[in-house]
Amino acid sequence: MKGSKNMENFFDHMEEHEDVNMIKLEVNIDDISSEWLGYTMDKLLKEGANDVFYVPIFMKKNRPAYMMQVLCDQKILENIKRIIFEETTTLGIRYYPVTVHRLGRRFVERKTPWGVVKIKQGIYNGQIVQESPEYEDCKNIADRHQIPLKKIYDYVWKKGYKGKET
Amino acid sequence: MKGSKNMENFFDHMEEHEDVNMIKLEVNIDDISSEWLGYTMDKLLKEGANDVFYVPIFMKKNRPAYMMQVLCDQKILENIKRIIFEETTTLGIRYYPVTVHRLGRRFVERKTPWGVVKIKQGIYNGQIVQESPEYEDCKNIADRHQIPLKKIYDYVWKKGYKGKET
Amino acid sequence: MKGSKNMENFFDHMEEHEDVNMIKLEVNIDDISSEWLGYTMDKLLKEGANDVFYVPIFMKKNRPAYMMQVLCDQKILENIKRIIFEETTTLGIRYYPVTVHRLGRRFVERKTPWGVVKIKQGIYNGQIVQESPEYEDCKNIADRHQIPLKKIYDYVWKKGYKGKET
Amino acid sequence: MKGSKNMENFFDHMEEHEDVNMIKLEVNIDDISSEWLGYTMDKLLKEGANDVFYVPIFMKKNRPAYMMQVLCDQKILENIKRIIFEETTTLGIRYYPVTVHRLGRRFVERKTPWGVVKIKQGIYNGQIVQESPEYEDCKNIADRHQIPLKKIYDYVWKKGYKGKET
Amino acid sequence: MKGSKNMENFFDHMEEHEDVNMIKLEVNIDDISSEWLGYTMDKLLKEGANDVFYVPIFMKKNRPAYMMQVLCDQKILENIKRIIFEETTTLGIRYYPVTVHRLGRRFVERKTPWGVVKIKQGIYNGQIVQESPEYEDCKNIADRHQIPLKKIYDYVWKKGYKGKET
Amino acid sequence: MKGSKNMENFFDHMEEHEDVNMIKLEVNIDDISSEWLGYTMDKLLKEGANDVFYVPIFMKKNRPAYMMQVLCDQKILENIKRIIFEETTTLGIRYYPVTVHRLGRRFVERKTPWGVVKIKQGIYNGQIVQESPEYEDCKNIADRHQIPLKKIYDYVWKKGYKGKET
Repeated sequence: MKGSKNMENFFDHMEEHEDVNMIKLEVNIDDISSEWLGYTMDKLLKEGANDVFYVPIFMKKNRPAYMMQVLCDQKILENIKRIIFEETTTLGIRYYPVTVHRLGRRFVERKTPWGVVKIKQGIYNGQIVQESPEYEDCKNIADRHQIPLKKIYDYVWKKGYKGKET
Repeated sequence: MKGSKNMENFFDHMEEHEDVNMIKLEVNIDDISSEWLGYTMDKLLKEGANDVFYVPIFMKKNRPAYMMQVLCDQKILENIKRIIFEETTTLGIRYYPVTVHRLGRRFVERKTPWGVVKIKQGIYNGQIVQESPEYEDCKNIADRHQIPLKKIYDYVWKKGYKGKET
Repeated sequence: MKGSKNMENFFDHMEEHEDVNMIKLEVNIDDISSEWLGYTMDKLLKEGANDVFYVPIFMKKNRPAYMMQVLCDQKILENIKRIIFEETTTLGIRYYPVTVHRLGRRFVERKTPWGVVKIKQGIYNGQIVQESPEYEDCKNIADRHQIPLKKIYDYVWKKGYKGKET
Repeated sequence: MKGSKNMENFFDHMEEHEDVNMIKLEVNIDDISSEWLGYTMDKLLKEGANDVFYVPIFMKKNRPAYMMQVLCDQKILENIKRIIFEETTTLGIRYYPVTVHRLGRRFVERKTPWGVVKIKQGIYNGQIVQESPEYEDCKNIADRHQIPLKKIYDYVWKKGYKGKET
Repeated sequence: MKGSKNMENFFDHMEEHEDVNMIKLEVNIDDISSEWLGYTMDKLLKEGANDVFYVPIFMKKNRPAYMMQVLCDQKILENIKRIIFEETTTLGIRYYPVTVHRLGRRFVERKTPWGVVKIKQGIYNGQIVQESPEYEDCKNIADRHQIPLKKIYDYVWKKGYKGKET
Repeated sequence: MKGSKNMENFFDHMEEHEDVNMIKLEVNIDDISSEWLGYTMDKLLKEGANDVFYVPIFMKKNRPAYMMQVLCDQKILENIKRIIFEETTTLGIRYYPVTVHRLGRRFVERKTPWGVVKIKQGIYNGQIVQESPEYEDCKNIADRHQIPLKKIYDYVWKKGYKGKET
């Protein structure tokens, strides 16, 4: 957050803010194949949903089922509902507004012996409260060099946070 | 939705709509027997709740518990709360309004070698996006004729959707 | 356990024992409707399975699924497998032997103002370590007399355990 | 609720009410150790949160995760958010208002051969609909006297509810 | 199962059998990021594990956690254990032998207006008890032609099972 | 594993081994308060069980329930069963033998500005494959110095693994 270091490069950041335009949708699903649920999750994320996840629930008539939850901006609410009605067997979708408080985000780059790894920093009230290596970058290195994913994360963490490099 | 076919009979339908009078209630339950939870679910559904289901949760003091969720129209909110307070051991119920977008519904009948099966169709923007055989009808046939439930569904699906009969 | 009391009647008991003939079956289900799972559970219990239950699991390709577990005596293993293959879409069933240590069981009857309730006692090393009212009896009274199920249990518990009647 | 009995002492009660100032917060957590989640739960409860619990969820990229839910009064919303951002790795928190209907509460004391146990009563529309022994009191007696926790509860229940002492 | 039809082509089958060489491994994971769990699942499946899945569990010290379960042939047990120890933070793995009863498998091809879909059939005691379209084939068609996945399955089912084509 | 460093001290280690004397016990619990389950978990761990955890399951008659699983050495099997029968309401316990492959364990100490933190290392085939700070040590420092738990872990990780100190 101070000056850039030679091991790090700033290339993106987003301000901390409260988003009052978010919607949470919920659908109870008890007569659909799980294969379709994996497919529907992908389609909703491609459409622009912020998040999609499944919660195990127990419904009437001894039905073990899942509740699908979707977070999206109200601007795309109709598209999201359309995809849910077209790809699942549900006859109803419930939804309600939620506020989302998002931290400021910034990406820095860290060099490792195997390539560059992006670090995502979370900024709260002007302070960095989070730092975590980007999963996709670590995964690519692990796959390419046949090194346990754990070790890539180790190296990145070891190189320090908040400027405390060794 | 078009004309009736000789294999099918229309006898009911409900318009697509957005219901803004729905309430979602939530209760965390950590000191009650599961036997009572099965009983309470039935009682709430008989009272007119649209849906009742259980979600596994992990509470403080290492308590594996369940959150009961109930969907109901605000008109019966007080009755629903009364039943929950009388039948469970909870000391508090939280609730909030939700909007429910329901598809238009229509029932058609399909003849099978073993009897009639009702099909429920879901209509979105004037199009049929869902069709599924009514579980209770399929179950009765399966029990009566000692045929795997799977086979009853197979037969009904085979006979086609959206008018594509063989 | 001592003598019978005028409020209680003995009419059944089963010895504590270790059963070495039990089998646990497990099936991962990710392409079947939950409606069928409720149906299959009933069918397996009717066939003589000791217990059937569902566990939420997360499978590959982002599939939220369920593992069905069945407990049965090895004598009916083939029938149980047949029902699972016929009623679900699974292509494989895994199973292994388990030992079950069962408490001695005895039923006593307790009179209440609304009728008789059976109490099931569990006996371990000759001592009663459990007592619980039979759910079905309590439920019938609750339904018939429109009394919260909780209150039926309260009355029965109040009347004491292990002979400590008031 | 009538007069005090010699076996019981009244020493506290809170009126039944509807609380419209409550907030429910939700955080999806998929890159944090469970060790930290147990720690964060304690910290939030110490800060004044009414309740904290975890729900299993299945997220994208085959990530089995947990949703942490927190109930708190809107007065401490900022403090609660601060703790979540500082102690977990989340980059966003979603929240929305909920209404909580709380029963009237009253504590009575009951003497047992091993010491005093507080009973918490729940009052709905002027009627006692709940009574349950305080867990901490029963636990202390069980630990101190090496008696199964079950037996402490048995004794307390046997001594009656709503004044029906034997 | 008898003769081939012009709409179907046989190209593979596997006999029904009981496999007595299978191992089930279990690992309780409470101090690892979910990101790594998704990665580990992939790696184990690439290595030859028959199945990998996650079960939500609640551990001591209020830790919401996951149990990873792996099914594999005993021949690759050591490789599977090695991957688990290298990619996760666990200090121990428990495992035990299980028997797996697998149905006979056969693939047939079905032509659709959009391309060929493989159907997997399950054979039990010489009878076809299962038929389900291969997910990957249906998914590819759905993606390529922008048709809801549901409709691809509908078409395939409609075309019949066990030779009952329309 | 090589020589000791001035920042680290060796004081304990346990050899990698396969334990063939372990038992897994399972109990389905559907008529007991969650308060008791937290209590029972503690009691079993005090008695010497290696691990105790809860799995959400869905049982017959619409009962959301939990399966308690316990890992213990066969030497204490009878004690463990006794506690389960005395503290829960179950009438039966199922169990079976499992093999547990445990990594070699070694503790090293690392100095931090706030005190000493023990690191637990896991050794597989003579190699260190794991290292993680002891939770209790990190927690104590976090509580005492009012520092987020995350930061204590950060510092310890930064100081390196496998001898790569800065």
